[in-house]
Amino acid sequence: MANKVRAFIEPFRVTNGDKFRLKDIDPNDTRGVKSRAKAEELLAKGVKQLSDMQEKLYAQDRWSLLLIFQAMDAAGKDGAIKHVLSGINPQGCQVYSFKAPTVEDLDHDFMWRCTRCLPERGRIGIFNRSYYEETLVVRVHPEFLEAQRLPKECQSKNLWQERFEDIRNFEKYITRQGVVVLKFFLHVSKKEQRKRLLERLEDPDKNWKFSKADLNERAHWNDYMSAYEDMIRNTATKRAPWYVVPADNKWYTRLVVGAAIHDALTDLDLRFPEVDARKKQELSEVKDALARGDA
Amino acid sequence: MANKVRAFIEPFRVTNGDKFRLKDIDPNDTRGVKSRAKAEELLAKGVKQLSDMQEKLYAQDRWSLLLIFQAMDAAGKDGAIKHVLSGINPQGCQVYSFKAPTVEDLDHDFMWRCTRCLPERGRIGIFNRSYYEETLVVRVHPEFLEAQRLPKECQSKNLWQERFEDIRNFEKYITRQGVVVLKFFLHVSKKEQRKRLLERLEDPDKNWKFSKADLNERAHWNDYMSAYEDMIRNTATKRAPWYVVPADNKWYTRLVVGAAIHDALTDLDLRFPEVDARKKQELSEVKDALARGDA
Repeated sequence: MANKVRAFIEPFRVTNGDKFRLKDIDPNDTRGVKSRAKAEELLAKGVKQLSDMQEKLYAQDRWSLLLIFQAMDAAGKDGAIKHVLSGINPQGCQVYSFKAPTVEDLDHDFMWRCTRCLPERGRIGIFNRSYYEETLVVRVHPEFLEAQRLPKECQSKNLWQERFEDIRNFEKYITRQGVVVLKFFLHVSKKEQRKRLLERLEDPDKNWKFSKADLNERAHWNDYMSAYEDMIRNTATKRAPWYVVPADNKWYTRLVVGAAIHDALTDLDLRFPEVDARKKQELSEVKDALARGDA
Repeated sequence: MANKVRAFIEPFRVTNGDKFRLKDIDPNDTRGVKSRAKAEELLAKGVKQLSDMQEKLYAQDRWSLLLIFQAMDAAGKDGAIKHVLSGINPQGCQVYSFKAPTVEDLDHDFMWRCTRCLPERGRIGIFNRSYYEETLVVRVHPEFLEAQRLPKECQSKNLWQERFEDIRNFEKYITRQGVVVLKFFLHVSKKEQRKRLLERLEDPDKNWKFSKADLNERAHWNDYMSAYEDMIRNTATKRAPWYVVPADNKWYTRLVVGAAIHDALTDLDLRFPEVDARKKQELSEVKDALARGDA
Protein backbone atom coordinates (compact mmCIF):
# COMPACT_ATOMS: atom_id res chain seq x y z
CA MET A 1 0.00 0.00 0.00
CA ALA A 2 2.73 2.48 1.03
CA ASN A 3 4.71 1.54 -2.09
CA LYS A 4 1.69 2.09 -4.29
CA VAL A 5 1.11 5.55 -2.85
CA ARG A 6 4.78 6.44 -3.34
CA ALA A 7 4.71 5.26 -6.95
CA PHE A 8 1.59 7.31 -7.60
CA ILE A 9 3.12 10.61 -6.37
CA GLU A 10 6.66 9.99 -7.67
CA PRO A 11 6.20 11.70 -11.06
CA PHE A 12 5.23 14.95 -9.35
CA ARG A 13 7.78 14.97 -6.56
CA VAL A 14 10.90 17.16 -7.01
CA THR A 15 13.74 16.63 -4.52
CA ASN A 16 16.49 18.07 -6.68
CA GLY A 17 15.66 20.99 -8.92
CA ASP A 18 18.72 20.96 -11.16
CA LYS A 19 16.98 19.52 -14.17
CA PHE A 20 13.43 20.57 -13.39
CA ARG A 21 11.40 22.02 -16.25
CA LEU A 22 7.82 23.13 -15.68
CA LYS A 23 6.86 22.07 -19.21
CA ASP A 24 7.56 18.44 -18.28
CA ILE A 25 4.45 18.45 -16.09
CA ASP A 26 1.12 18.49 -17.90
CA PRO A 27 -1.57 20.37 -15.91
CA ASN A 28 -4.14 18.02 -17.44
CA ASP A 29 -2.33 14.81 -16.43
CA THR A 30 -4.44 12.23 -14.59
CA ARG A 31 -2.12 9.26 -14.76
CA GLY A 32 -2.67 6.31 -12.48
CA VAL A 33 -6.40 6.90 -11.99
CA LYS A 34 -9.14 5.37 -14.11
CA SER A 35 -11.91 7.86 -13.44
CA ARG A 36 -13.08 10.73 -11.34
CA ALA A 37 -15.33 8.38 -9.37
CA LYS A 38 -12.39 6.10 -8.61
CA ALA A 39 -10.32 9.10 -7.49
CA GLU A 40 -13.04 10.26 -5.13
CA GLU A 41 -13.36 6.79 -3.67
CA LEU A 42 -9.59 6.58 -3.08
CA LEU A 43 -9.49 10.05 -1.55
CA ALA A 44 -12.31 9.22 0.87
CA LYS A 45 -10.39 6.16 2.03
CA GLY A 46 -7.15 8.13 2.30
CA VAL A 47 -8.73 10.94 4.31
CA LYS A 48 -9.88 8.42 6.91
CA GLN A 49 -6.34 7.10 7.25
CA LEU A 50 -4.95 10.62 7.46
CA SER A 51 -7.26 11.30 10.36
CA ASP A 52 -5.93 8.21 12.20
CA MET A 53 -2.33 9.16 11.57
CA GLN A 54 -2.92 12.73 12.73
CA GLU A 55 -4.22 11.40 16.06
CA LYS A 56 -0.95 9.55 16.56
CA LEU A 57 1.10 12.55 15.46
CA TYR A 58 -0.68 14.58 18.11
CA ALA A 59 -0.37 11.95 20.85
CA GLN A 60 3.30 11.29 20.10
CA ASP A 61 3.94 15.08 20.18
CA ARG A 62 7.38 14.97 18.53
CA TRP A 63 7.03 15.74 14.83
CA SER A 64 5.06 18.50 13.26
CA LEU A 65 3.97 18.73 9.63
CA LEU A 66 4.10 21.91 7.56
CA LEU A 67 2.15 21.98 4.29
CA ILE A 68 2.85 24.91 1.99
CA PHE A 69 0.47 25.68 -0.88
CA GLN A 70 1.41 27.98 -3.74
CA ALA A 71 -0.44 28.52 -7.01
CA MET A 72 -1.93 30.99 -9.45
CA ASP A 73 -5.43 32.20 -8.57
CA ALA A 74 -8.24 29.68 -9.06
CA ALA A 75 -5.81 26.75 -9.23
CA GLY A 76 -7.65 25.07 -6.36
CA LYS A 77 -5.62 25.71 -3.19
CA ASP A 78 -8.65 26.39 -1.01
CA GLY A 79 -10.52 23.40 -2.40
CA ALA A 80 -7.56 21.06 -1.90
CA ILE A 81 -7.16 22.18 1.72
CA LYS A 82 -10.89 21.75 2.30
CA HIS A 83 -11.28 18.33 0.69
CA VAL A 84 -8.06 16.72 1.87
CA LEU A 85 -7.96 18.02 5.42
CA SER A 86 -11.60 18.29 6.45
CA GLY A 87 -11.45 14.89 8.15
CA ILE A 88 -8.70 16.07 10.51
CA ASN A 89 -9.43 17.11 14.09
CA PRO A 90 -9.12 20.92 13.98
CA GLN A 91 -7.45 20.85 17.42
CA GLY A 92 -4.38 19.40 15.72
CA CYS A 93 -4.46 21.58 12.63
CA GLN A 94 -3.78 25.28 12.03
CA VAL A 95 -4.32 27.07 8.70
CA TYR A 96 -2.71 30.45 7.98
CA SER A 97 -3.52 32.39 4.81
CA PHE A 98 -0.91 34.98 3.92
CA LYS A 99 -2.29 37.94 1.99
CA ALA A 100 -0.48 41.20 1.22
CA PRO A 101 2.01 41.93 4.03
CA THR A 102 0.95 44.38 6.74
CA VAL A 103 2.97 47.38 7.86
CA GLU A 104 4.20 45.30 10.83
CA ASP A 105 5.23 42.45 8.50
CA LEU A 106 7.16 44.84 6.26
CA ASP A 107 9.06 46.12 9.29
CA HIS A 108 10.64 42.66 9.63
CA ASP A 109 12.56 40.16 7.52
CA PHE A 110 10.40 38.64 4.77
CA MET A 111 10.00 35.23 6.49
CA TRP A 112 9.04 36.69 9.88
CA ARG A 113 5.27 36.66 9.45
CA CYS A 114 5.44 32.97 8.52
CA THR A 115 7.99 31.73 11.06
CA ARG A 116 5.88 32.97 13.95
CA CYS A 117 3.04 30.79 12.64
CA LEU A 118 5.06 27.57 12.41
CA PRO A 119 3.07 24.58 13.70
CA GLU A 120 3.65 23.41 17.25
CA ARG A 121 5.03 19.96 17.84
CA GLY A 122 2.38 17.32 17.19
CA ARG A 123 0.36 19.54 14.85
CA ILE A 124 -0.25 20.03 11.18
CA GLY A 125 0.33 23.60 10.00
CA ILE A 126 -0.98 24.74 6.63
CA PHE A 127 0.34 27.82 4.86
CA ASN A 128 -2.05 29.02 2.18
CA ARG A 129 0.67 31.04 0.39
CA SER A 130 3.88 31.60 2.34
CA TYR A 131 7.34 33.17 2.33
CA TYR A 132 7.59 31.85 -1.23
CA GLU A 133 5.43 34.80 -2.30
CA GLU A 134 8.66 36.78 -1.99
CA THR A 135 10.11 34.82 -4.92
CA LEU A 136 6.88 35.08 -6.93
CA VAL A 137 4.77 38.23 -6.65
CA VAL A 138 7.68 40.38 -5.44
CA ARG A 139 9.90 39.02 -8.18
CA VAL A 140 7.29 39.66 -10.87
CA HIS A 141 6.63 43.13 -9.43
CA PRO A 142 10.05 44.33 -8.28
CA GLU A 143 8.47 47.66 -7.30
CA PHE A 144 7.08 45.84 -4.22
CA LEU A 145 10.66 45.53 -2.94
CA GLU A 146 10.65 49.27 -2.33
CA ALA A 147 7.99 48.81 0.38
CA GLN A 148 10.42 46.60 2.32
CA ARG A 149 12.67 49.61 2.92
CA LEU A 150 15.83 47.49 2.71
CA PRO A 151 19.02 49.49 3.26
CA LYS A 152 20.82 50.17 -0.04
CA GLU A 153 23.68 47.94 1.13
CA CYS A 154 21.27 44.98 1.34
CA GLN A 155 19.92 45.39 -2.19
CA SER A 156 22.42 42.99 -3.63
CA LYS A 157 22.73 42.10 -7.31
CA ASN A 158 22.27 38.48 -6.24
CA LEU A 159 19.13 39.26 -4.28
CA TRP A 160 17.09 36.30 -5.56
CA GLN A 161 19.92 33.80 -5.24
CA GLU A 162 20.41 35.01 -1.67
CA ARG A 163 16.70 34.68 -0.94
CA PHE A 164 16.75 31.11 -2.25
CA GLU A 165 19.79 30.27 -0.15
CA ASP A 166 18.16 31.77 2.94
CA ILE A 167 15.00 29.77 2.32
CA ARG A 168 16.95 26.52 1.81
CA ASN A 169 18.88 27.13 5.03
CA PHE A 170 15.71 27.95 6.92
CA GLU A 171 14.03 24.75 5.76
CA LYS A 172 17.12 22.73 6.64
CA TYR A 173 16.97 24.22 10.12
CA ILE A 174 13.29 23.53 10.79
CA THR A 175 13.47 19.98 9.44
CA ARG A 176 16.32 19.39 11.89
CA GLN A 177 13.96 20.65 14.58
CA GLY A 178 11.35 18.03 13.76
CA VAL A 179 9.19 19.90 11.25
CA VAL A 180 8.35 17.79 8.19
CA VAL A 181 8.01 20.14 5.22
CA LEU A 182 5.92 19.43 2.10
CA LYS A 183 5.45 22.07 -0.57
CA PHE A 184 2.73 21.99 -3.21
CA PHE A 185 2.61 23.96 -6.40
CA LEU A 186 -0.80 23.46 -7.99
CA HIS A 187 -0.04 23.71 -11.66
CA VAL A 188 -3.08 24.95 -13.60
CA SER A 189 -3.08 25.88 -17.29
CA LYS A 190 -3.86 29.41 -18.45
CA LYS A 191 -6.86 28.08 -20.37
CA GLU A 192 -8.33 26.32 -17.33
CA GLN A 193 -7.80 29.41 -15.18
CA ARG A 194 -9.79 31.44 -17.72
CA LYS A 195 -12.66 28.96 -17.46
CA ARG A 196 -12.65 29.09 -13.66
CA LEU A 197 -12.48 32.87 -13.48
CA LEU A 198 -15.46 33.04 -15.86
CA GLU A 199 -17.37 30.69 -13.52
CA ARG A 200 -16.67 33.02 -10.63
CA LEU A 201 -18.22 35.85 -12.65
CA GLU A 202 -21.21 33.85 -13.83
CA ASP A 203 -22.16 31.93 -10.67
CA PRO A 204 -23.60 34.29 -8.02
CA ASP A 205 -22.41 31.92 -5.26
CA LYS A 206 -18.85 32.26 -6.54
CA ASN A 207 -18.90 36.02 -7.17
CA TRP A 208 -17.31 36.75 -3.78
CA LYS A 209 -14.20 34.86 -4.83
CA PHE A 210 -13.52 37.06 -7.83
CA SER A 211 -11.05 39.87 -7.44
CA LYS A 212 -9.95 42.20 -10.22
CA ALA A 213 -6.40 41.76 -8.96
CA ASP A 214 -6.51 38.15 -10.23
CA LEU A 215 -6.86 39.47 -13.79
CA ASN A 216 -3.84 41.75 -13.34
CA GLU A 217 -1.70 38.83 -12.28
CA ARG A 218 -3.05 36.74 -15.18
CA ALA A 219 -1.57 39.36 -17.49
CA HIS A 220 1.87 38.42 -16.12
CA TRP A 221 1.32 34.69 -16.71
CA ASN A 222 4.65 33.98 -18.42
CA ASP A 223 6.64 35.90 -15.80
CA TYR A 224 4.93 33.90 -13.09
CA MET A 225 5.65 30.59 -14.80
CA SER A 226 9.36 31.51 -15.02
CA ALA A 227 9.33 32.56 -11.37
CA TYR A 228 7.67 29.29 -10.28
CA GLU A 229 10.12 27.25 -12.31
CA ASP A 230 13.11 29.08 -10.89
CA MET A 231 11.73 28.82 -7.36
CA ILE A 232 11.35 25.04 -7.68
CA ARG A 233 14.75 24.64 -9.33
CA ASN A 234 16.35 26.45 -6.40
CA THR A 235 14.43 25.20 -3.40
CA ALA A 236 13.48 21.58 -4.10
CA THR A 237 15.48 19.45 -1.67
CA LYS A 238 15.26 15.97 -0.24
CA ARG A 239 14.34 17.44 3.14
CA ALA A 240 11.71 19.79 1.75
CA PRO A 241 10.45 18.49 -1.60
CA TRP A 242 8.15 20.32 -3.98
CA TYR A 243 5.15 18.54 -5.43
CA VAL A 244 4.18 19.96 -8.80
CA VAL A 245 0.57 18.87 -8.94
CA PRO A 246 -1.46 18.83 -12.16
CA ALA A 247 -4.35 21.14 -11.40
CA ASP A 248 -6.66 21.22 -14.41
CA ASN A 249 -8.78 18.48 -12.80
CA LYS A 250 -9.62 19.29 -9.21
CA TRP A 251 -10.40 15.70 -8.26
CA TYR A 252 -6.95 14.66 -9.42
CA THR A 253 -5.18 17.53 -7.65
CA ARG A 254 -6.81 16.55 -4.37
CA LEU A 255 -5.89 12.92 -4.73
CA VAL A 256 -2.22 13.74 -5.38
CA VAL A 257 -2.07 16.17 -2.44
CA GLY A 258 -3.74 13.64 -0.15
CA ALA A 259 -1.41 10.88 -1.30
CA ALA A 260 1.70 13.02 -0.70
CA ILE A 261 0.62 13.80 2.87
CA HIS A 262 -0.26 10.15 3.40
CA ASP A 263 3.17 9.12 2.17
CA ALA A 264 5.00 11.59 4.42
CA LEU A 265 3.10 10.59 7.54
CA THR A 266 3.54 6.89 6.79
CA ASP A 267 7.29 7.49 6.64
CA LEU A 268 7.26 8.74 10.24
CA ASP A 269 6.08 5.42 11.65
CA LEU A 270 3.75 7.13 14.09
CA ARG A 271 2.46 5.27 17.16
CA PHE A 272 0.64 6.07 20.33
CA PRO A 273 3.15 6.58 23.15
CA GLU A 274 3.72 3.40 25.14
CA VAL A 275 3.04 3.37 28.84
CA ASP A 276 5.78 1.87 31.03
CA ALA A 277 5.27 -0.75 33.78
CA ARG A 278 5.20 1.79 36.61
CA LYS A 279 2.64 3.94 34.86
CA LYS A 280 0.56 0.82 34.07
CA GLN A 281 0.55 -0.06 37.78
CA GLU A 282 -0.55 3.47 38.62
CA LEU A 283 -3.37 3.35 36.07
CA SER A 284 -4.52 0.01 37.40
CA GLU A 285 -4.66 1.34 40.98
CA VAL A 286 -6.64 4.38 39.92
CA LYS A 287 -9.03 2.17 37.97
CA ASP A 288 -9.63 0.00 41.01
CA ALA A 289 -10.19 3.00 43.26
CA LEU A 290 -12.73 4.45 40.83
CA ALA A 291 -14.44 1.06 40.50
CA ARG A 292 -14.71 0.70 44.29
CA GLY A 293 -16.10 4.23 44.62
CA ASP A 294 -13.11 5.35 46.76
CA ALA A 295 -12.02 8.12 44.43
CA MET B 1 37.15 59.90 16.60
CA ALA B 2 35.62 56.90 14.81
CA ASN B 3 39.12 55.44 14.37
CA LYS B 4 39.87 55.90 18.05
CA VAL B 5 36.69 54.08 19.04
CA ARG B 6 37.47 51.23 16.64
CA ALA B 7 41.01 50.89 18.00
CA PHE B 8 39.66 50.78 21.55
CA ILE B 9 37.25 47.89 20.90
CA GLU B 10 39.47 45.99 18.45
CA PRO B 11 41.16 43.72 21.05
CA PHE B 12 37.78 42.38 22.16
CA ARG B 13 36.13 41.98 18.77
CA VAL B 14 36.04 38.47 17.27
CA THR B 15 35.01 38.22 13.60
CA ASN B 16 36.62 34.84 12.92
CA GLY B 17 36.63 32.30 15.70
CA ASP B 18 39.16 29.84 14.28
CA LYS B 19 41.95 30.82 16.63
CA PHE B 20 39.91 32.21 19.48
CA ARG B 21 40.92 31.20 23.00
CA LEU B 22 39.02 32.50 25.99
CA LYS B 23 42.20 32.59 28.08
CA ASP B 24 43.59 35.30 25.78
CA ILE B 25 41.09 37.75 27.24
CA ASP B 26 41.73 38.90 30.82
CA PRO B 27 38.49 39.65 32.70
CA ASN B 28 40.36 42.30 34.65
CA ASP B 29 41.73 44.10 31.58
CA THR B 30 41.18 47.86 31.49
CA ARG B 31 43.50 48.78 28.65
CA GLY B 32 43.14 52.16 26.97
CA VAL B 33 41.53 53.92 29.93
CA LYS B 34 43.43 55.84 32.59
CA SER B 35 40.89 55.68 35.40
CA ARG B 36 37.36 54.87 36.35
CA ALA B 37 36.51 58.58 36.41
CA LYS B 38 37.82 58.98 32.86
CA ALA B 39 35.79 55.97 31.72
CA GLU B 40 32.62 57.40 33.20
CA GLU B 41 33.24 60.74 31.53
CA LEU B 42 33.78 59.06 28.14
CA LEU B 43 30.68 56.90 28.56
CA ALA B 44 28.50 59.93 29.38
CA LYS B 45 29.69 61.62 26.20
CA GLY B 46 29.19 58.45 24.16
CA VAL B 47 25.66 57.87 25.46
CA LYS B 48 24.67 61.35 24.24
CA GLN B 49 25.96 60.56 20.77
CA LEU B 50 24.20 57.18 20.79
CA SER B 51 20.96 58.96 21.50
CA ASP B 52 21.48 61.24 18.48
CA MET B 53 22.33 58.32 16.22
CA GLN B 54 19.31 56.35 17.40
CA GLU B 55 17.04 59.25 16.38
CA LYS B 56 18.42 59.07 12.87
CA LEU B 57 18.17 55.27 12.81
CA TYR B 58 14.49 55.64 13.68
CA ALA B 59 13.82 58.43 11.18
CA GLN B 60 15.65 56.67 8.36
CA ASP B 61 13.69 53.48 9.14
CA ARG B 62 15.87 51.09 7.12
CA TRP B 63 18.35 49.39 9.43
CA SER B 64 17.65 47.81 12.76
CA LEU B 65 20.18 46.94 15.44
CA LEU B 66 20.14 43.72 17.45
CA LEU B 67 22.26 43.57 20.61
CA ILE B 68 22.68 40.15 22.17
CA PHE B 69 23.99 39.83 25.74
CA GLN B 70 25.27 36.56 27.16
CA ALA B 71 27.16 36.00 30.41
CA MET B 72 27.41 34.08 33.64
CA ASP B 73 25.21 35.39 36.46
CA ALA B 74 26.29 38.65 38.07
CA ALA B 75 28.61 39.48 35.17
CA GLY B 76 26.79 42.78 34.70
CA LYS B 77 24.38 42.31 31.77
CA ASP B 78 21.54 44.23 33.40
CA GLY B 79 23.85 47.04 34.52
CA ALA B 80 25.42 47.37 31.07
CA ILE B 81 21.99 47.58 29.41
CA LYS B 82 20.86 50.14 31.99
CA HIS B 83 23.93 52.38 31.86
CA VAL B 84 24.65 52.26 28.15
CA LEU B 85 21.10 52.47 26.82
CA SER B 86 19.26 54.61 29.36
CA GLY B 87 19.79 57.72 27.23
CA ILE B 88 17.90 56.16 24.30
CA ASN B 89 14.29 57.04 23.53
CA PRO B 90 12.39 53.93 24.69
CA GLN B 91 10.06 54.30 21.68
CA GLY B 92 12.93 53.13 19.50
CA CYS B 93 14.21 50.42 21.80
CA GLN B 94 12.84 47.02 22.86
CA VAL B 95 14.41 44.78 25.52
CA TYR B 96 13.54 41.08 25.77
CA SER B 97 14.82 38.92 28.62
CA PHE B 98 14.73 35.23 27.86
CA LYS B 99 14.33 33.03 30.94
CA ALA B 100 13.61 29.31 31.00
CA PRO B 101 11.56 28.39 27.92
CA THR B 102 7.79 28.07 28.33
CA VAL B 103 5.74 25.08 27.22
CA GLU B 104 4.78 27.05 24.10
CA ASP B 105 8.45 27.82 23.37
CA LEU B 106 9.40 24.16 23.73
CA ASP B 107 6.71 23.24 21.21
CA HIS B 108 8.72 25.13 18.55
CA ASP B 109 12.23 25.22 17.14
CA PHE B 110 14.75 26.60 19.64
CA MET B 111 15.12 29.99 17.94
CA TRP B 112 11.38 30.61 17.59
CA ARG B 113 10.85 32.53 20.83
CA CYS B 114 13.63 34.92 19.84
CA THR B 115 12.89 35.37 16.15
CA ARG B 116 9.38 36.61 16.88
CA CYS B 117 10.95 39.35 19.03
CA LEU B 118 13.36 40.62 16.37
CA PRO B 119 13.50 44.42 16.30
CA GLU B 120 11.41 46.26 13.72
CA ARG B 121 13.12 48.34 11.11
CA GLY B 122 14.48 51.58 12.61
CA ARG B 123 14.68 50.14 16.14
CA ILE B 124 17.21 48.79 18.57
CA GLY B 125 16.36 45.35 19.93
CA ILE B 126 18.12 44.01 23.00
CA PHE B 127 18.18 40.31 23.86
CA ASN B 128 19.12 39.74 27.50
CA ARG B 129 20.10 36.12 26.86
CA SER B 130 18.98 34.64 23.53
CA TYR B 131 18.96 31.55 21.32
CA TYR B 132 22.60 31.15 22.35
CA GLU B 133 21.33 29.71 25.65
CA GLU B 134 20.78 26.56 23.61
CA THR B 135 24.55 26.21 23.14
CA LEU B 136 25.24 27.06 26.81
CA VAL B 137 22.81 25.92 29.47
CA VAL B 138 21.34 23.12 27.32
CA ARG B 139 24.82 21.98 26.36
CA VAL B 140 26.01 21.96 29.97
CA HIS B 141 22.79 20.20 31.04
CA PRO B 142 22.02 17.82 28.16
CA GLU B 143 19.04 16.51 30.15
CA PHE B 144 17.25 19.75 29.15
CA LEU B 145 17.24 18.49 25.55
CA GLU B 146 14.71 15.87 26.61
CA ALA B 147 12.16 18.63 27.27
CA GLN B 148 12.39 19.66 23.63
CA ARG B 149 10.81 16.36 22.58
CA LEU B 150 12.87 16.17 19.39
CA PRO B 151 12.10 13.11 17.28
CA LYS B 152 14.81 10.44 17.64
CA GLU B 153 15.76 10.98 14.00
CA CYS B 154 16.65 14.62 14.78
CA GLN B 155 18.94 13.80 17.70
CA SER B 156 22.00 13.74 15.53
CA LYS B 157 25.51 12.96 16.73
CA ASN B 158 26.51 16.33 15.30
CA LEU B 159 23.77 18.15 17.16
CA TRP B 160 25.92 21.04 18.37
CA GLN B 161 27.70 21.54 15.06
CA GLU B 162 24.28 21.61 13.39
CA ARG B 163 22.99 24.13 15.89
CA PHE B 164 26.01 26.35 15.23
CA GLU B 165 25.50 26.08 11.48
CA ASP B 166 21.82 26.92 11.84
CA ILE B 167 22.65 29.96 13.97
CA ARG B 168 25.28 31.17 11.49
CA ASN B 169 22.82 30.80 8.62
CA PHE B 170 20.11 32.57 10.56
CA GLU B 171 22.38 35.52 11.33
CA LYS B 172 23.51 35.66 7.71
CA TYR B 173 19.87 35.86 6.69
CA ILE B 174 18.84 38.62 9.10
CA THR B 175 21.89 40.76 8.34
CA ARG B 176 20.93 40.52 4.65
CA GLN B 177 17.52 41.80 5.70
CA GLY B 178 18.99 44.92 7.30
CA VAL B 179 19.48 43.77 10.89
CA VAL B 180 22.89 44.77 12.28
CA VAL B 181 23.91 42.10 14.81
CA LEU B 182 26.31 42.69 17.73
CA LYS B 183 26.90 39.97 20.31
CA PHE B 184 28.42 40.59 23.73
CA PHE B 185 29.87 38.00 26.06
CA LEU B 186 30.61 39.71 29.37
CA HIS B 187 33.60 37.78 30.61
CA VAL B 188 33.75 37.82 34.44
CA SER B 189 36.20 35.80 36.52
CA LYS B 190 35.04 33.14 38.94
CA LYS B 191 36.58 35.10 41.81
CA GLU B 192 34.77 38.32 40.92
CA GLN B 193 31.47 36.44 40.55
CA ARG B 194 31.92 35.09 44.08
CA LYS B 195 32.37 38.62 45.38
CA ARG B 196 29.26 39.87 43.60
CA LEU B 197 27.09 36.96 44.71
CA LEU B 198 28.20 37.62 48.31
CA GLU B 199 27.16 41.26 47.88
CA ARG B 200 23.73 40.15 46.78
CA LEU B 201 23.44 38.12 49.97
CA GLU B 202 24.76 40.86 52.24
CA ASP B 203 23.06 43.95 50.82
CA PRO B 204 19.28 43.85 51.55
CA ASP B 205 18.64 46.00 48.43
CA LYS B 206 20.34 43.35 46.31
CA ASN B 207 18.80 40.30 47.98
CA TRP B 208 16.05 40.09 45.33
CA LYS B 209 18.67 39.47 42.66
CA PHE B 210 20.02 36.34 44.32
CA SER B 211 18.78 32.99 43.16
CA LYS B 212 20.00 29.65 44.41
CA ALA B 213 20.07 28.49 40.82
CA ASP B 214 23.02 30.85 40.24
CA LEU B 215 25.08 28.77 42.67
CA ASN B 216 24.20 25.56 40.85
CA GLU B 217 25.45 27.00 37.58
CA ARG B 218 28.59 28.28 39.31
CA ALA B 219 29.39 24.67 40.15
CA HIS B 220 29.60 24.00 36.40
CA TRP B 221 32.00 26.92 35.80
CA ASN B 222 34.54 25.04 33.69
CA ASP B 223 31.86 23.43 31.52
CA TYR B 224 30.36 26.84 30.90
CA MET B 225 33.72 28.35 29.96
CA SER B 226 34.27 25.55 27.42
CA ALA B 227 30.78 26.06 26.06
CA TYR B 228 31.28 29.84 25.72
CA GLU B 229 34.60 29.34 24.00
CA ASP B 230 33.17 26.82 21.56
CA MET B 231 30.16 29.04 20.88
CA ILE B 232 32.39 31.99 20.02
CA ARG B 233 34.73 29.86 17.92
CA ASN B 234 31.78 28.64 15.89
CA THR B 235 29.59 31.71 15.55
CA ALA B 236 31.91 34.73 15.36
CA THR B 237 31.60 36.12 11.84
CA LYS B 238 32.28 39.40 10.10
CA ARG B 239 28.55 39.97 9.74
CA ALA B 240 27.76 39.12 13.35
CA PRO B 241 30.87 39.61 15.51
CA TRP B 242 31.23 38.62 19.14
CA TYR B 243 32.64 41.10 21.62
CA VAL B 244 34.35 39.34 24.51
CA VAL B 245 34.20 42.09 27.10
CA PRO B 246 36.35 42.08 30.27
CA ALA B 247 33.78 42.18 33.04
CA ASP B 248 35.60 42.33 36.36
CA ASN B 249 35.30 46.13 36.33
CA LYS B 250 31.77 47.23 35.59
CA TRP B 251 32.78 50.73 34.49
CA TYR B 252 35.10 49.23 31.90
CA THR B 253 32.53 46.71 30.65
CA ARG B 254 30.04 49.50 30.04
CA LEU B 255 32.53 51.63 28.17
CA VAL B 256 33.47 48.77 25.83
CA VAL B 257 29.82 47.91 25.16
CA GLY B 258 28.96 51.55 24.52
CA ALA B 259 31.95 51.96 22.22
CA ALA B 260 31.03 48.85 20.19
CA ILE B 261 27.49 50.12 19.63
CA HIS B 262 28.84 53.56 18.78
CA ASP B 263 31.21 52.03 16.26
CA ALA B 264 28.49 49.96 14.59
CA LEU B 265 26.06 52.86 14.28
CA THR B 266 28.81 55.16 12.97
CA ASP B 267 29.49 52.64 10.22
CA LEU B 268 25.91 52.96 8.99
CA ASP B 269 26.30 56.64 8.11
CA LEU B 270 22.85 57.47 9.40
CA ARG B 271 21.07 60.66 8.32
CA PHE B 272 17.64 62.17 8.56
CA PRO B 273 15.71 61.43 5.35
CA GLU B 274 16.00 64.25 2.86
CA VAL B 275 12.90 65.99 1.63
CA ASP B 276 12.62 66.45 -2.14
CA ALA B 277 11.76 69.71 -3.94
CA ARG B 278 8.08 68.86 -4.36
CA LYS B 279 7.68 67.98 -0.69
CA LYS B 280 9.56 71.18 0.27
CA GLN B 281 7.09 73.20 -1.80
CA GLU B 282 4.19 71.42 -0.07
CA LEU B 283 5.64 72.12 3.38
CA SER B 284 6.16 75.75 2.48
CA GLU B 285 2.52 76.14 1.36
CA VAL B 286 1.23 74.51 4.54
CA LYS B 287 3.46 76.78 6.61
CA ASP B 288 2.07 79.86 4.86
CA ALA B 289 -1.52 78.71 5.31
CA LEU B 290 -0.96 78.11 9.02
CA ALA B 291 0.75 81.48 9.34
CA ARG B 292 -2.14 83.27 7.60
CA GLY B 293 -4.64 81.48 9.81
CA ASP B 294 -6.29 79.79 6.78
CA ALA B 295 -5.68 76.25 8.04
